[in-house]
Amino acid sequence: MKRTELKKLYENPAGFGEVTVCGWIKSLRAGKGISFLSLSDGSFFLPVQVVVEQEKVRNYEEISGLNTGAAVCVRGKVVLTPDARQPFEINADDVTVEGVSAPDYPLQKKAHSPEYLRTITHLRMRTNTFQAVFRVRSAAAQAIHRFFAENGFVYAHTPIITASDCEGAGEMFRVTTGEDEEFFGVPASLTVSGQLEGECMAMAFGKIYTFGPTFRAEKSYTPRHAAEFWMIEPEIAFADLDDDMELAENMLKYILTALLDECSAELKFCEKFYESGLTERLQSVVRSDFVRCSYTKAIDLLERSEEKFRYPVYWGCDLQTEHERYLTEKVFGMPVFVTGYPKEIKAFYMRQNDDGRTVAAMDLLVPGVGELIGGSQREERFPVLTARMTELGMSLDDYDWYLDLRRYGGAKHAGFGLGFERLIMYVTGVSNIRDVIPFPRTAGNIY
Amino acid sequence: MKRTELKKLYENPAGFGEVTVCGWIKSLRAGKGISFLSLSDGSFFLPVQVVVEQEKVRNYEEISGLNTGAAVCVRGKVVLTPDARQPFEINADDVTVEGVSAPDYPLQKKAHSPEYLRTITHLRMRTNTFQAVFRVRSAAAQAIHRFFAENGFVYAHTPIITASDCEGAGEMFRVTTGEDEEFFGVPASLTVSGQLEGECMAMAFGKIYTFGPTFRAEKSYTPRHAAEFWMIEPEIAFADLDDDMELAENMLKYILTALLDECSAELKFCEKFYESGLTERLQSVVRSDFVRCSYTKAIDLLERSEEKFRYPVYWGCDLQTEHERYLTEKVFGMPVFVTGYPKEIKAFYMRQNDDGRTVAAMDLLVPGVGELIGGSQREERFPVLTARMTELGMSLDDYDWYLDLRRYGGAKHAGFGLGFERLIMYVTGVSNIRDVIPFPRTAGNIY
Repeated sequence: MKRTELKKLYENPAGFGEVTVCGWIKSLRAGKGISFLSLSDGSFFLPVQVVVEQEKVRNYEEISGLNTGAAVCVRGKVVLTPDARQPFEINADDVTVEGVSAPDYPLQKKAHSPEYLRTITHLRMRTNTFQAVFRVRSAAAQAIHRFFAENGFVYAHTPIITASDCEGAGEMFRVTTGEDEEFFGVPASLTVSGQLEGECMAMAFGKIYTFGPTFRAEKSYTPRHAAEFWMIEPEIAFADLDDDMELAENMLKYILTALLDECSAELKFCEKFYESGLTERLQSVVRSDFVRCSYTKAIDLLERSEEKFRYPVYWGCDLQTEHERYLTEKVFGMPVFVTGYPKEIKAFYMRQNDDGRTVAAMDLLVPGVGELIGGSQREERFPVLTARMTELGMSLDDYDWYLDLRRYGGAKHAGFGLGFERLIMYVTGVSNIRDVIPFPRTAGNIY
Repeated sequence: MKRTELKKLYENPAGFGEVTVCGWIKSLRAGKGISFLSLSDGSFFLPVQVVVEQEKVRNYEEISGLNTGAAVCVRGKVVLTPDARQPFEINADDVTVEGVSAPDYPLQKKAHSPEYLRTITHLRMRTNTFQAVFRVRSAAAQAIHRFFAENGFVYAHTPIITASDCEGAGEMFRVTTGEDEEFFGVPASLTVSGQLEGECMAMAFGKIYTFGPTFRAEKSYTPRHAAEFWMIEPEIAFADLDDDMELAENMLKYILTALLDECSAELKFCEKFYESGLTERLQSVVRSDFVRCSYTKAIDLLERSEEKFRYPVYWGCDLQTEHERYLTEKVFGMPVFVTGYPKEIKAFYMRQNDDGRTVAAMDLLVPGVGELIGGSQREERFPVLTARMTELGMSLDDYDWYLDLRRYGGAKHAGFGLGFERLIMYVTGVSNIRDVIPFPRTAGNIY
């Protein structure tokens, strides 16, 4: 079927004469002899207005009686409307009904609560909010692949089903067949991170990234936790923490630049309904040089501040979101990398600094959110790594393959993790993780 | 650390004077006063030869005594070698050892069996075969994202954990927390296909694709089955089976063109060691117009053939790989879409043809492999779909959300599935699926 997509029409409405557009009715105003359809085809955030005149179409009654949600194909002429709100409209010569919409269509013109829309995930993506959010999600994912491809990274598919437990990062889901016998011979789980396998691949390909689903079996009923979410985890060889931060900064700026360019209509919508000043905030991140600040200095700044924090601040404490946001919003007014965290609050694989107390870790804090990215240089020194693992009571046997990376040509390397949903929440201003995942999975919820 | 990647050097060796390259030693020939390192940094398929002269470096003994697999950084001059096998080499001024390689390094210069290499998945990616295969895998994945992005498709993250069972496509893994209580309130499994959710998204965005992991809990010990593999599933609205085939053909040609362009060194290697004539085969696919042939005609062609088939051929039978390969290799000598399969051997959601016996399904058969892509137009007619589901004893209640897509603005739509690993096997000539997945998961095997 030859149809013209609204995205193409919006790019150059004057370039089209007669077109056929197919889409779904967002709203319909039927009058005597003339009806106006607002039609959306999913190719672009904005709908098009279709003018249907009784005398021109053979089935005016059918059309003017359609319900919201109905699918139609319209053949007609593109008419530029420089004085109207929309730059053009379509004057219909023929309208064919592809599929009617039953009278109980759940998405009527009025606004629906997010809670209600979460009960109809299969339909909510037709609303403006989810048209904006999932289009931004797609553009961000594609930009991420483009960034890494342009920079010579190998895309690594690390395994989803795993027998290992990356750093005990959280509760894991078990994978079984329901039979007594283990399908894989040993107990298997859903991955919480592809990092350790990513390190294997970085030691072969130099620069790699993962982009895949990860899982946590935690019964957290907060707006920031989901059982299934996507992560981006680059890993670079012959690289230290400075290289790691440079990569994170370049990547984030690349993504935001792409979104500002490709999703301006969507971001404008999010700005209006979810976070005022959104576009300017993203633009200012692209323009700024991210600050770098040591953990020790950050603690000092927090201790000296007049701010009343809910959680106490002391050297050795893990930074809470309130602390992170104070630093990035009030102290620096821009994104900031905090580096050199106490080793006790960080994972076993992070490279120990010479002070014996801190590790070469970094968190990127951004205004409005707090931590967006967490990374580190990895401990490449076999004796230092095994000593730390032993100290933590870990089994060296279980990680024998991981230690091989230090036995055979271990090189300085570093990497970070970016929670994809947190990024989408950050760039859209949408505050509940359930609303940035098409079919969210949380405790008690698999609708 | 400022280092120059081999990929950049190979692009324009004459453009560099002094460089620092970092990588791993593939082989070392130590002589009196001069040693030759073959160094690979993972950025490019080919290594670089580094010439180390005793009188120029401070640590000649250390360097010449290194083992395969050691990581080094070399500062030196790029010397063009127009008469040698490699176009340039590096004359070292300084070599720093980043990490030695223990004497028992499992990857020595000799060839290792694929079976042995499967026991060291974390190291095998450093060998030529896996450097080629996983680089092709990455380039193919990035090309797929690029193809869909350029064509205005929304990338859809359909869920991995699911409560539904797409078409009973195979045995599913169960997801639990090990506790009695169900984490999600109901039994949950790992997805076998994102199609049904993809259809929801196509009915909102017009054109979408998924690219994510899917799972089968089948104890198949064949070289073509894995428990975890990646699938690409586009879904297009206001589209019929012809549009679907056009999309599949364009996508495949786009991927092959990208690989021929970006991975020529890797494909040359695969051609030498895995499949002679590989490059020419891929080029001819790009050049050809894919044939379209009805299932009924295909059966006729098979019945008339002189070929001895292991499986009997009759109208109604499912085509076996031997049949598929005969059609695409012997009859047509190029890729062929077979269309209009009997409804009994296809899934419930495929659109019924007017003959009452066949559905608007298509399989793309390619030389050397057989079926590469399977797709169909979906049944958008509510009464036809529910009648078929009832006939098959399916619960309409369980699929109420799926049926909503036909209640509210149902539109013609179509889609297909491409098994990503099968594609990689096809383009590399590697015949075991365990060797095209970095960390393969099969029954009894989660190493």
